[in-house]
Amino acid sequence: MADRKTEILEATCRVIARSGAHDLRVEDVATEASVSPALVYYYFDTRAELLSRAFEFADARSTAHTMKHIQTDASGRDRLHAVLFHEFVDAPDVRDNWVIWGEMTASAVFDKALLATLDTWSRSWVKMVADLITDGQRDGSIPTTAIDADDAAERLTAIVDSLGGKIHLGFLDPERGRAILQDAIDMELGTDRESAPTTASAHTR
Amino acid sequence: MADRKTEILEATCRVIARSGAHDLRVEDVATEASVSPALVYYYFDTRAELLSRAFEFADARSTAHTMKHIQTDASGRDRLHAVLFHEFVDAPDVRDNWVIWGEMTASAVFDKALLATLDTWSRSWVKMVADLITDGQRDGSIPTTAIDADDAAERLTAIVDSLGGKIHLGFLDPERGRAILQDAIDMELGTDRESAPTTASAHTR
Repeated sequence: MADRKTEILEATCRVIARSGAHDLRVEDVATEASVSPALVYYYFDTRAELLSRAFEFADARSTAHTMKHIQTDASGRDRLHAVLFHEFVDAPDVRDNWVIWGEMTASAVFDKALLATLDTWSRSWVKMVADLITDGQRDGSIPTTAIDADDAAERLTAIVDSLGGKIHLGFLDPERGRAILQDAIDMELGTDRESAPTTASAHTR
Repeated sequence: MADRKTEILEATCRVIARSGAHDLRVEDVATEASVSPALVYYYFDTRAELLSRAFEFADARSTAHTMKHIQTDASGRDRLHAVLFHEFVDAPDVRDNWVIWGEMTASAVFDKALLATLDTWSRSWVKMVADLITDGQRDGSIPTTAIDADDAAERLTAIVDSLGGKIHLGFLDPERGRAILQDAIDMELGTDRESAPTTASAHTR
C-alpha cells in the first residue's frame, strides 16, 4: 500500500514537471500512475492535499538524491562542493526539481496552504549547507574562525538557486555559472590551498 | 491613445499581482482598466501578446522605479547600495514586482514565447548592477583592482533575488536579510573604510 502511494506521488511530480501545478487534474495523475482516480482520492482527500504532499515528497526525494552524490567519508568542504555543484548538473531529475520548486513558489504566493511546505523546504536546504560548513570546520577542511555558517549558507544557496535557475532556463552558460559559484565558495570559506581566509584570494583568478 | 495603452498594461500588472498570470482573462483586464474587451484587443492581438507586453512593461517600470530612488550625484557605491537594498523594501509596488517576476518565471518554463522577455529582464538587472560597480570603480568609491564587475553583479543580484523572495514571502527577517546582503557587498567590493579588498574584512563582524 505504501508503494502505491509513493507511485502516485511520483506520478504527480512528473505531471507537475511536464505541465505545471496550476492545471493539474487528479484524473491526469491517475492516468500517469495507471490507477483509478478513486484510488488517488483514497490516499489524498483533495487535490490541494495531493499537491502539498507531492511538494513535500519532491523535497524529501531531492534531499535523498543529493545525499546519494556525497561520499560520506569525504571532507566537509568536498561534500559541500558536491552538494552545491550538483544543482547545476544537466540531468532530467535535477531539472524536474527546479521546475517543481518554481511551480511551488509561484503557487505559494496565491495559496497560503503551500507556504509552510515551501518555508520548510527552503530552510532545510539552507540548513543542509550550513551543516556541511560546520562539518568542514570540525574536520579542518574549512577555517573555524571568522565564518558564520548560517550566513554563508544563506548566500551560497541564494547563488546556487538563482544561477541554477538561469542555467536550466538556458540563460547562463553552465561553465560560467560554475566559475562564479567557485569564486563565491572561495570568498566565503577561503581557497582550498589556504587554512584561513586571510587574503582576498577569491578575487585572484 | 498611448495613455490608454499604458493604462491597460498597468491594469494587467495589477491583475497578475493580485491573482497570477495563469488564470488571467482579457475580460478581467478590461474591467480593471474600465475599458471594453474590444479595446484591449485593439491594442493587443491575443492574450499571449498582452501577457508578454505586460511583463516587458513591468520590467521597464521596475527599472524606472529603481532609478527614481537613486541620487544621480551619489557615488557608484552608494547608488549600488540604494538599488540592491531597495528590493527588500516592504512597499506594495516592490512586492507586486516580485509577484510578477515569479509568475513570469513560472510561466516561461511552459511558454517558450516568454523566455526571451524573461532573459532580457534578467540580463538588464545584472547589467544595471555591473554598471554601477563600474561607475564606482571610475569615481573611486569601489576598488579597481581584483574585482570583476560582471561576476560580482551575478552574485549580488542572485543574493538579492533569493533573499528578497524569502523576505516578501515572510520566510526571512528583513533585518537579517539586510545584514547578510551588507556582508556580501563588503566581501565582493571591500568594506567602505578600505580602498582595496586586501583582507578578508567581510568575515570580521
